Amino acid sequence: MAVIGTGLIGTSVALAAAAQGVSVYLSDRDRTAARTAAALGAGRAQEPPEPVDLAVLAVPPSQVAAVLIACQGRGLARAYTDVASVKAGPEQAVLGRAPDPAAYVGGHPLAGRERSGPLAARAELFRGRPWALTPHPLTSRAALDRGLELAELCGAAPVVMRSREHDEVVALTSHVPHLLAAVMAARLRDGPAGVPLLAGQGLRDVTRIAAGDPRLWGDILRSNARAMAGVVQELRADLSRVAAALDVLAEADDGARDQGVRTLEELLARGVAGLARLPRPGAGPPEGRAALRVLVPDRPGELARLLGAVAAFGVAADDIAVEAAEESGLSVRIPVPTADAERIEAGLDAVGYAVQVRSPANWTALSKR
Amino acid sequence: MAVIGTGLIGTSVALAAAAQGVSVYLSDRDRTAARTAAALGAGRAQEPPEPVDLAVLAVPPSQVAAVLIACQGRGLARAYTDVASVKAGPEQAVLGRAPDPAAYVGGHPLAGRERSGPLAARAELFRGRPWALTPHPLTSRAALDRGLELAELCGAAPVVMRSREHDEVVALTSHVPHLLAAVMAARLRDGPAGVPLLAGQGLRDVTRIAAGDPRLWGDILRSNARAMAGVVQELRADLSRVAAALDVLAEADDGARDQGVRTLEELLARGVAGLARLPRPGAGPPEGRAALRVLVPDRPGELARLLGAVAAFGVAADDIAVEAAEESGLSVRIPVPTADAERIEAGLDAVGYAVQVRSPANWTALSKR
Repeated sequence: MAVIGTGLIGTSVALAAAAQGVSVYLSDRDRTAARTAAALGAGRAQEPPEPVDLAVLAVPPSQVAAVLIACQGRGLARAYTDVASVKAGPEQAVLGRAPDPAAYVGGHPLAGRERSGPLAARAELFRGRPWALTPHPLTSRAALDRGLELAELCGAAPVVMRSREHDEVVALTSHVPHLLAAVMAARLRDGPAGVPLLAGQGLRDVTRIAAGDPRLWGDILRSNARAMAGVVQELRADLSRVAAALDVLAEADDGARDQGVRTLEELLARGVAGLARLPRPGAGPPEGRAALRVLVPDRPGELARLLGAVAAFGVAADDIAVEAAEESGLSVRIPVPTADAERIEAGLDAVGYAVQVRSPANWTALSKR
Repeated sequence: MAVIGTGLIGTSVALAAAAQGVSVYLSDRDRTAARTAAALGAGRAQEPPEPVDLAVLAVPPSQVAAVLIACQGRGLARAYTDVASVKAGPEQAVLGRAPDPAAYVGGHPLAGRERSGPLAARAELFRGRPWALTPHPLTSRAALDRGLELAELCGAAPVVMRSREHDEVVALTSHVPHLLAAVMAARLRDGPAGVPLLAGQGLRDVTRIAAGDPRLWGDILRSNARAMAGVVQELRADLSRVAAALDVLAEADDGARDQGVRTLEELLARGVAGLARLPRPGAGPPEGRAALRVLVPDRPGELARLLGAVAAFGVAADDIAVEAAEESGLSVRIPVPTADAERIEAGLDAVGYAVQVRSPANWTALSKR
């Protein structure tokens, strides 16, 4: 394998491949970066002696086509992919200008760090992350297969889609979030003296990705301007409504204020609904879950004891709810995977809890197993 | 101590105090919530038999004054504080209407989780976090002292400031970020089908806090509308410039495109500059640091070996940089605390590295110690 561009992503790909025994040849127009990657164990900082199976072009989106053309001109590899986070523009340039477009499949691993450069690279960077592959109509089966193998080699989950669909999705899931993080972080520069004193984890999370390299991100955003423009337009419309509501709340009488609060609450509720579309890390599908109900005596520490007991069975504390307070104690609902329900019930029974009721529909499903 | 309102923050305060041996009396207008907190070990779900030293009002900002008035009416406590994330409005209401404003000091621990309710509470929630205290001109010394003691009891770092200054700062560090996270998350609701497939950690971080309870956050944002309105105004101006740049990039010719890219890069660079105002968690002051320089041979894995060696001395990998590639290898710069420089140098020497150069100014300071 050849890796052209030994920044964060290129070096991480090379480290992951080298760890699996692949021979990797590294290059970068900054020779120090390539030697640094090599000294990290990512491969050899030299041209391959003969054509390689796959060349990974880890360069900014605007340079993908030009680098591909140069590589194909000297017969570097039998297949090519890239890692740029915009796909339609590079694809169009490749189709229009490259000697052998069939040997190219677009790629985009959805992983990154707020640091850049080879020293920030990690072989595990892509583990469990999505890796988009965007074959165009001329992409050969062999090139697509090399792309799929690369994603799997890095421990990522390949997702195959069209380049334009990819760009619309990442405008929403990556590029506009980056822009918003930067706009928010830029406001901190001129804020009052107390800003560093009262900065909490929430602010850090919202702004974290704004630490990315402005040159690289400028190139990414420029290359996906059309898809981003639509999302930014919608955001501005939402923010205008919010601004009007805030003005009302700051100035107006009680009736108008109620309307302002409703506007804010409605936006916040839409935000909660939007978050529900993101897969919860580590969460299984909503089907296949049963609910155990346990009555906890009304004594200090009893609930903490139950939480400790269910944690021992691998149940996430976040899913547990107190459903009702009865005369005799608190009724606690514990959602569990149907497949584990009997085992957890027996385990809770063994440490002194009586499981009272199970969600009947799910319980039927459980009994049928 | 009495805690009025056993949601996430109230129950966490109560758990932290109870863990230090304080007798805590819990109440909530939702009786189940108070009994749940008690069953977690946060205290007793009953009225205190006699006036307590401190009552913590863990209720939304718009209810602080009314709850304080009711509590002072029945002589609940000798001092009062609250935990609302807006301070000027509650303070004004307390000064205007409460029987004994001198017994009240405003408080705001800067900690939270995206879950709410007593089951999400943690005694460690405030550890190492800022805890703002906002005494007004009538606040008694005794009330301020109780507030300081509470912050310390919870392991937080007290920060004393005026209520209006507090509100301006948190508009920027907490409330507008929450709004932006919600606006972004709301966009996901109607996005294309691929959104869940290509959602990465960056998106999760930017939108995480939008999971907060819309009713509670509606109340918070409403109560700080004036300070937020100014920040939102500035954000909208920035976003308008970005939108214009994106339109140019999507449509116009090369000359105009360069101007569009410059606009984006300039905003991104302002974002990076804004982030620099946030204290880096765990980072010491920039003074008192020396730089070790090590020449690493140009062989695969040598740099990884050095990184492993310095990690063993507690040096953060993020600070290390390759400064130059020389004929004989890579020159690596390792910033270390001045106080540890000699020890780390000796340690690196012991595993075969020759430390070449130290930052001379710092080295003088080190020699003088």
